[in-house]
Amino acid sequence: MKNIKLVIEYDGTNYYGWQVQPRLKTIQGEIKSAIRKITKEDVRLFGSGRTDKGVHANGQVANFKTFSTIPGHKFKHALNTVLPMDIVIKDSEEVDESFHSRFSATGKKYKYILCNKKTRSALLRNYTYHVSYDLDIKNMEKAASYFIGTHDFYGFKASGSAIKDTVRTIYSLDIEKRNELIEFNIEGNGFLYNMVRIIVGTIIKVGNNNISPESIQSIIKSKDRKRAGDTAPSQGLYLEKVYYDNKI
Amino acid sequence: MKNIKLVIEYDGTNYYGWQVQPRLKTIQGEIKSAIRKITKEDVRLFGSGRTDKGVHANGQVANFKTFSTIPGHKFKHALNTVLPMDIVIKDSEEVDESFHSRFSATGKKYKYILCNKKTRSALLRNYTYHVSYDLDIKNMEKAASYFIGTHDFYGFKASGSAIKDTVRTIYSLDIEKRNELIEFNIEGNGFLYNMVRIIVGTIIKVGNNNISPESIQSIIKSKDRKRAGDTAPSQGLYLEKVYYDNKI
Repeated sequence: MKNIKLVIEYDGTNYYGWQVQPRLKTIQGEIKSAIRKITKEDVRLFGSGRTDKGVHANGQVANFKTFSTIPGHKFKHALNTVLPMDIVIKDSEEVDESFHSRFSATGKKYKYILCNKKTRSALLRNYTYHVSYDLDIKNMEKAASYFIGTHDFYGFKASGSAIKDTVRTIYSLDIEKRNELIEFNIEGNGFLYNMVRIIVGTIIKVGNNNISPESIQSIIKSKDRKRAGDTAPSQGLYLEKVYYDNKI
Repeated sequence: MKNIKLVIEYDGTNYYGWQVQPRLKTIQGEIKSAIRKITKEDVRLFGSGRTDKGVHANGQVANFKTFSTIPGHKFKHALNTVLPMDIVIKDSEEVDESFHSRFSATGKKYKYILCNKKTRSALLRNYTYHVSYDLDIKNMEKAASYFIGTHDFYGFKASGSAIKDTVRTIYSLDIEKRNELIEFNIEGNGFLYNMVRIIVGTIIKVGNNNISPESIQSIIKSKDRKRAGDTAPSQGLYLEKVYYDNKI
């Protein structure tokens, strides 16, 4: 039995997120169905983590076990011929049977894109979050620096999430402005549910001069979801990369 | 009676092009219907030119005459509140009654974007043309240079087009590679139907080493549509700007 690892790009616009749900179109559901067409098997497909409705990926990772004789690297092409155009396998390979896309992961990288101009964008509406007011980038960068390191991010998770260990390490959080786009790149050893979107929402509050950059320290310490910013909307978020070793 | 000029951005993916057609969703149709909601008038809306199904715009221009008392610059906001999210008015103003978006135009700028990599892109599928084979950028730039200037572009128009004067001047045609994207920027005093897409298709033929850069000269002179390249598909094309004076 082979263990196949997939690296996946998708446009999340037309899906109800990663995870299979009855009667709803999901990324996991589409890929499982593509695997079924190729192998005639009903596999369990493990993703590195769920992504919400509207969230995109340039490098989601998943794995599945199969009796198929198709060589690992050939799944890429085989699956791409049957997948819808808004999902694509960027890479496929056979990996050690112990590999698990979620439990073997040692880190992740996300991107978040704001479109910062007065008028909304038609072309970028599903791929960025439109912020019409002026943002103070210098203060946002300062705010970002306080997130770096190991913290208890209890106040930066969706309130429904019942996870116990809420300590995470953020390796880097860079903010870059290119014309009307403001891009956040964030890397860490793991992220709580909605954590990236709440961090972005909080930094936007700083950019809007609602709170000071320095207040990030006490907001994190307070572990109070209400003190952090709003959850930035899903369409600006991209799962860029999943890491499987300690070098990132 | 006021003459209102609109500058429009749209995502052409979900439309049957610019021009109103019975029972089909079109950009012109949506904007006319938005104007009707705001003014209660059934106006004639003149576009600077048609765009095909799937073609996008960052700067399409249109105008219409109205008895409305709404000031010209306020149409932008008023229309944006009723337009669908994939169409947006970037600017509106009252202009001289003699202004006509099509007949007053002195030039246009188009962009065309290729996604040049082995595997197709899920996120860019509706916004670029995917070319999976290697392209020789140096030769493409050389080919591009032969299009600049005043030529009879009879062989570079869609065969159905019955237009008589097929002489056009191309001011500039730049090709820029940024990672996996190859961007064409082309400016001219006017373009025949499908002319930009046929020029791009012909330059791709050069990039693929099917024809030499120098052969562009004889292909233009031949006025033979069959000697030019294929019409590059619509989703890579963007109407960037329409000029209304001689300075561009």
